[in-house]
Amino acid sequence: MHRSLRDNGLQPNADLTRLIVLTTDFGGIDGYVGVLKGVILSINPKAALIDLTHSILPQNLIQCSFVLGTSAHYFPRGSIHVIVVDPGVGTDRDLLLLETPDATFIAPDNGVLSAILSKNDSSYEARQTGYVQVPDDCEAYVLTESEVWLKPVSNTFHGRDILAPVAAHVSLGMPVSQLGRKVDSIFFLSTPVPTREAEMISGQVINIDHFGNLITNITKDLLLNSSKLQVQIKDTKILELSRNFASGLGSRFLPELVSLIGSHGYLEIALKNGNAAKVLSVDVGEPVLVRTD
Amino acid sequence: MHRSLRDNGLQPNADLTRLIVLTTDFGGIDGYVGVLKGVILSINPKAALIDLTHSILPQNLIQCSFVLGTSAHYFPRGSIHVIVVDPGVGTDRDLLLLETPDATFIAPDNGVLSAILSKNDSSYEARQTGYVQVPDDCEAYVLTESEVWLKPVSNTFHGRDILAPVAAHVSLGMPVSQLGRKVDSIFFLSTPVPTREAEMISGQVINIDHFGNLITNITKDLLLNSSKLQVQIKDTKILELSRNFASGLGSRFLPELVSLIGSHGYLEIALKNGNAAKVLSVDVGEPVLVRTD
Amino acid sequence: MHRSLRDNGLQPNADLTRLIVLTTDFGGIDGYVGVLKGVILSINPKAALIDLTHSILPQNLIQCSFVLGTSAHYFPRGSIHVIVVDPGVGTDRDLLLLETPDATFIAPDNGVLSAILSKNDSSYEARQTGYVQVPDDCEAYVLTESEVWLKPVSNTFHGRDILAPVAAHVSLGMPVSQLGRKVDSIFFLSTPVPTREAEMISGQVINIDHFGNLITNITKDLLLNSSKLQVQIKDTKILELSRNFASGLGSRFLPELVSLIGSHGYLEIALKNGNAAKVLSVDVGEPVLVRTD
Repeated sequence: MHRSLRDNGLQPNADLTRLIVLTTDFGGIDGYVGVLKGVILSINPKAALIDLTHSILPQNLIQCSFVLGTSAHYFPRGSIHVIVVDPGVGTDRDLLLLETPDATFIAPDNGVLSAILSKNDSSYEARQTGYVQVPDDCEAYVLTESEVWLKPVSNTFHGRDILAPVAAHVSLGMPVSQLGRKVDSIFFLSTPVPTREAEMISGQVINIDHFGNLITNITKDLLLNSSKLQVQIKDTKILELSRNFASGLGSRFLPELVSLIGSHGYLEIALKNGNAAKVLSVDVGEPVLVRTD
Repeated sequence: MHRSLRDNGLQPNADLTRLIVLTTDFGGIDGYVGVLKGVILSINPKAALIDLTHSILPQNLIQCSFVLGTSAHYFPRGSIHVIVVDPGVGTDRDLLLLETPDATFIAPDNGVLSAILSKNDSSYEARQTGYVQVPDDCEAYVLTESEVWLKPVSNTFHGRDILAPVAAHVSLGMPVSQLGRKVDSIFFLSTPVPTREAEMISGQVINIDHFGNLITNITKDLLLNSSKLQVQIKDTKILELSRNFASGLGSRFLPELVSLIGSHGYLEIALKNGNAAKVLSVDVGEPVLVRTD
Repeated sequence: MHRSLRDNGLQPNADLTRLIVLTTDFGGIDGYVGVLKGVILSINPKAALIDLTHSILPQNLIQCSFVLGTSAHYFPRGSIHVIVVDPGVGTDRDLLLLETPDATFIAPDNGVLSAILSKNDSSYEARQTGYVQVPDDCEAYVLTESEVWLKPVSNTFHGRDILAPVAAHVSLGMPVSQLGRKVDSIFFLSTPVPTREAEMISGQVINIDHFGNLITNITKDLLLNSSKLQVQIKDTKILELSRNFASGLGSRFLPELVSLIGSHGYLEIALKNGNAAKVLSVDVGEPVLVRTD
């Protein structure tokens, strides 16, 4: 049952502004993002639009899933997320509308919603099959009703021609069941899972942020409140978990590497006033070892 | 006759929010874009602002004209476009307000509006003279009425001091005829036109997008629905027109060059999950040949 | 006395939309900026949000202060500025709310508000002590009331967990005195001051903008309306002050260095249609000499 929108009567109420949140890999140099917004506002002039980010690395589905999974819950309930990271545009990949108790997601069926759904604990099966079941409290639709799409639909910009108009119509209160065909499972992208052997946890860097902070897949929970721990990346060992970016053991004038629990709830490795990724020459995928005692 | 705004009674109606769309070469690192918006909102606190892009290459009038020409029609009718790509700021170049049946454009008179007007079929004369006649269904004004400008007007940021306040006042319903002196022609920037000789079309790359896709000046219409065609760039030949970025002849694991009709309606050359511009070392201006059969 | 907001009755009026202006060093590649906005809109769904810039160089407090100081006065009176450039996040540095007659600033107490307050002429003492007195017409509070903060408060993203919710509540009309403890002085960051000896002014480059224009700390006033002056940077001498970027002595086809009073009111050095910083290999801090006659 879809609680937040349906039971609260939010969805049919066109007066209430539902935020439309945009996430793409379009970068800034073209008019592509502006055009998405223009299309939405041409259909719903009162649409409230917010950018999550437009700097997902080109075609990087895993990064997109990570950013969505760590950010979407900070937006108002009932937000409509439009995700356009779509290397298969124009092929037979489907376009989806997923409703969760918190939000609506409109995106290609290529795994960018994996982190949104994997919180629902279906990870093991999903990893095996490449598909994740739509949980009971959610609904998923493959977009099929072309009446609301722009015409002609291009083969290379379904964000503009399909996803944006669908989002605009949903924001105007169109019932989602009119937009497509209900489905039971959607595409799932496996991401590496950390492993634990005795007191050793093996994980890896799954994201590098603008500051060069290395975000690992090792969650706070895995560390079991160990008071003493040692983090290793490449040949570098960090001997403690810091409380913040500034409080490593190093002096104020010697930039120092710190490990800490970041704002996403994952173990991060950072350099005080510096760029850890550059200094350590680390890319996504680099192994990280944690010894807990 | 200026139909959409005047006949529909849109313009004098201050209650109706007319979108203000911003296009600049300011990039992101300064506060320049924010300041434009601050000025507009100081005059019209209810102004609705949208970014088309702020990443036009510095002073690149042709790219700006291309992005506007391929994007402006996706915005709501009555939108007010503010364009600040202005290498001649502070010289005797004029500042313009152009009203078309669809939108209002406020910009330096330096050619950035060429693609907006060249749809009106005055291209040949414009190419010869460097000026394009304002079509009958449009009106153009040189901004002269300094009452609404910020004071003192700087010599280096007319976007902030003149264009932004003018846009804000237009969005509040000020009649455009009060803002300046009507003119019959505006500056025109020639862009290369593809040529055809027998079954050979010669064009060139006119834009490279964030993904490294090469957008040529060869339109869909020029290809005459040829079922067989061959596209050549540098020494590389592409033997077919694909339907999308993913469906070239190459295997899934070998990135492959494709040519296709892009979302702007132009022939594009792209690399599946890659950057064609980088791999081919191509810049704007690179010749592209198409053999149609 | 806090005039603009209190005397005008602006602050307690929740109906009047007070703009929230965001300035950070988050860049674009993560969802951090989007999340700030999501948090604000979750608390005040009608909040009006504008970006000043998110491209302050990582942890660059002086650049942030400069951009704020040269931009904030272009936003509507009563705007609420949220500044998240915060290398000391999670340490014992305070978080501030500063009310001036024009605007409210919510920021770490690390000097990013220096240029906002140094207009109030307390510079000399501030330079000596590292602190600036809060002027009589302003009020400053250290944020202490955690009721409105997100829980749990992370150690690394106080922008999301504290500053954003505080801004949202202020935009809803919450009295600022309920948010923290009043303080008399705040942290001050010294920036280099130009010196004059006879007809020679010694300054330096304090900011480089997106165009590569070199913005110095030499104000228009210092030049004393000299009609003849010579500007030197490295071994290059510029023999006049131009009116605009395009009017140096060079020919149209030879890019030429110009010096001029920029839109911030400071002496700038620029290259016609080019990037002065790159061509001259200049970084922030480079000395600039002006000989006035």
